[in-house]
Amino acid sequence: MSRPLDAVLEGCRALIGERCSTNASIRDQHAHGEDWQTPARPDAVCFAQTTAEVSAILALCHRHAVPVVPFGAGTSLEGHVTAVRGGISLDLSRMTAILEVNEADLDARVEAGVTRQALNQHLRDRGLFFPVDPGAEATIGGMCATRASGTNAVRYGTIRENVLGLTVVLADGRVLETGTRARKSAAGYDLTRLFVGSEGTLGIITAARLRLYGIPEAISAAVCQFPDLAGAVETVIAVMQSNIPVARIELLDEVQMRACIRYSKLDGYAERPTLFFEFHGSKAGVAEQAQAVEEIAGSFGGSAFAWATSEEERARLWKARHAAYYAGVALRPGCKSITTDVCVPISRLAECMLGAKKDIAASGFTAPIVGHAGDGNFHTMILVDPNDPAEIARGFELDRRIVARALAMGGTCTGEHGVGLGKREFLLREAGADAVEAMRAVKAVFDPRGILNPGKIFMN
Amino acid sequence: MSRPLDAVLEGCRALIGERCSTNASIRDQHAHGEDWQTPARPDAVCFAQTTAEVSAILALCHRHAVPVVPFGAGTSLEGHVTAVRGGISLDLSRMTAILEVNEADLDARVEAGVTRQALNQHLRDRGLFFPVDPGAEATIGGMCATRASGTNAVRYGTIRENVLGLTVVLADGRVLETGTRARKSAAGYDLTRLFVGSEGTLGIITAARLRLYGIPEAISAAVCQFPDLAGAVETVIAVMQSNIPVARIELLDEVQMRACIRYSKLDGYAERPTLFFEFHGSKAGVAEQAQAVEEIAGSFGGSAFAWATSEEERARLWKARHAAYYAGVALRPGCKSITTDVCVPISRLAECMLGAKKDIAASGFTAPIVGHAGDGNFHTMILVDPNDPAEIARGFELDRRIVARALAMGGTCTGEHGVGLGKREFLLREAGADAVEAMRAVKAVFDPRGILNPGKIFMN
Repeated sequence: MSRPLDAVLEGCRALIGERCSTNASIRDQHAHGEDWQTPARPDAVCFAQTTAEVSAILALCHRHAVPVVPFGAGTSLEGHVTAVRGGISLDLSRMTAILEVNEADLDARVEAGVTRQALNQHLRDRGLFFPVDPGAEATIGGMCATRASGTNAVRYGTIRENVLGLTVVLADGRVLETGTRARKSAAGYDLTRLFVGSEGTLGIITAARLRLYGIPEAISAAVCQFPDLAGAVETVIAVMQSNIPVARIELLDEVQMRACIRYSKLDGYAERPTLFFEFHGSKAGVAEQAQAVEEIAGSFGGSAFAWATSEEERARLWKARHAAYYAGVALRPGCKSITTDVCVPISRLAECMLGAKKDIAASGFTAPIVGHAGDGNFHTMILVDPNDPAEIARGFELDRRIVARALAMGGTCTGEHGVGLGKREFLLREAGADAVEAMRAVKAVFDPRGILNPGKIFMN
Repeated sequence: MSRPLDAVLEGCRALIGERCSTNASIRDQHAHGEDWQTPARPDAVCFAQTTAEVSAILALCHRHAVPVVPFGAGTSLEGHVTAVRGGISLDLSRMTAILEVNEADLDARVEAGVTRQALNQHLRDRGLFFPVDPGAEATIGGMCATRASGTNAVRYGTIRENVLGLTVVLADGRVLETGTRARKSAAGYDLTRLFVGSEGTLGIITAARLRLYGIPEAISAAVCQFPDLAGAVETVIAVMQSNIPVARIELLDEVQMRACIRYSKLDGYAERPTLFFEFHGSKAGVAEQAQAVEEIAGSFGGSAFAWATSEEERARLWKARHAAYYAGVALRPGCKSITTDVCVPISRLAECMLGAKKDIAASGFTAPIVGHAGDGNFHTMILVDPNDPAEIARGFELDRRIVARALAMGGTCTGEHGVGLGKREFLLREAGADAVEAMRAVKAVFDPRGILNPGKIFMN
């Protein structure tokens, strides 16, 4: 071990005792997310329980120039938690306090390790919910750090629109509180939004103040199946262009449906391109929305709606949708997924997705498609053998083709997963050299010694 | 004139000819916004017509370290356009091209000098609108730069949520394109949101890509008057807490109503605390919303709704609301307004506003209150004699008291007007020294020579 690392470990042990661990299996668990990147172990894992501990650990790491990689639920798909330069994996998953819930103001303040499901469980009896839901059981800290979104974003926005403020520990250990409890503010630079999506490279988020919503009076979900992918995508486009405030509109292609039927026992559905809808509002409003959408779907060859109106049926449906990633991976035992995350203007979605479908066919890969189609965002899960470098290279080649098409359409390489390790070259292509240079300069201000999640977002 | 300024003027004249002016009356026009700050003239005014011209002018100013103050419609209430350190006032009001309107994707790209009304006029025949509407006939560039919002923000969000990307000229003349045409992105730091609200201190916005919305199937507006301010505020709070997706909910106290009745000839209304509502949706949805709100208002002593359903009636109502500032100033000929812009959590709005009302009574000032009450945001227009420094000091004292109360409630000193000159001390109190230091460090990255709107946001 290096001397600086020794000094940090000594300090951490004095601070948090056995919650600073160099145990090999714990380090292995913190060497990777759920992605296809080569795992890289941290030298130690620190389980922090308070902002003060995070602050003290960062101050130590800053002094000794030892890397720190924040870790939440470990569900990153882009290598965010991989300790490519060793150092400390700072695990915040034990910071699970729900610090405040203000029903009257529809806001809550939670620690970074609270998961979205734990938060919603806590809120349910009060008739409230937090809408941002990536498929994974991610932590709020991780979701803020990667600018997550998920199925409800089409109606409620991404986490960017739903964070009022953050508690952030800076590289040198100072603690910053950003934002206020007001719904809007024009007071100075938007530090909250600067940290949202910064992937642990500018500071470590230890708590967040979130917007909440009342559980709607009426909710209903419906499934609609299509003879071909084009019909399903065109339906999404027409619904979005019709101004209908649909709460969720999710697309699964026939490969993804096959995976979900097997994995989540979604009996009664065919292995066909499918849309999952959810409608929120008053009873009359929901009925009105659903009728309008069903008519549009019908005009593109969609089946009659299969309804899931009870809470149990809806829960089963969305559980299957949220498990889509695991269902996809299960199609090929032992595989890993190179997951695209392109997002394009809605008018280009059909062309983008059908193009991806052709690329997949030409490639020979099994690659289910699932997406938050209402946002113009979809994922292709390119299932590769993680032990076959040539196959990974071919998989990444397919990934590149799909991303290049999306960028040419004015889209983005990542709608919600973040850059991490896997999309650094795409960021440069998408944002351009000047923008990436500006980002680097901002990084240098907040992290002059380069200890915060080094190697992520930027190419070396 | 200083040598650096001479060099810049020579360069500007070579570049844009007579559109670089040192004419005294033009400089006077560019010495102030609509605020109470002491005017300060720029040394020259440059009327730019293209991003390339802005780029060339900034490169010149950067080389010679000459200040640049961006100027749009000149409607700032916080001294944003005052040339406190001289230099060039860079007027973008001639950059009025609407570059793209994509109906299928509900987005548009416009030059910075396009006003919100010009944009909406252009969009109307296509059945689209852009919702962000500060009262003033501001430019889109100025609205982005100050993180503006206005009456529709309660439903559609502020400009922060409605900008997809920006064209920004950096201090040294480089041109940055931020964002994409996709609805969401997790690709790197959110430079778009960093420039939104940066008040011309990080770069000069020359174009913006905006989100558009379909004009709703049904729109209706209603006016409801109350015996006391408490009833009006409590109605707003109850409506917001009831999850009703009201599009506009604006509060005017009896002083502001008196002003509007006189100035905008709002016949038929009493000089009483009043709410202006607007409902958007399907016909059934609008009726449902309005009924629910009318019931709530009634329970707090509100009158029966006076409806404005025709487009003309609605236009008259909102024109009066938008003219509230000019109506208020007209209450005291020759005065200027020190305008508060506090925004608090909705549950604290009654306490905050009634507290302000008491402070006003104790102060002896005429000070109408008007606000985007659904956001928890309201303005107190403290009408002062601009030639009486002692009165300005007393006015600012009242301002301070109102802001201090809002900050103590977890609110912000500025919901939508920005910091400019007038709220610099409040920013420090609200955000704290570490956050302001972080903002300063970011400023130094983007503007190492300190030429971009110097003196704004930060105390010297």
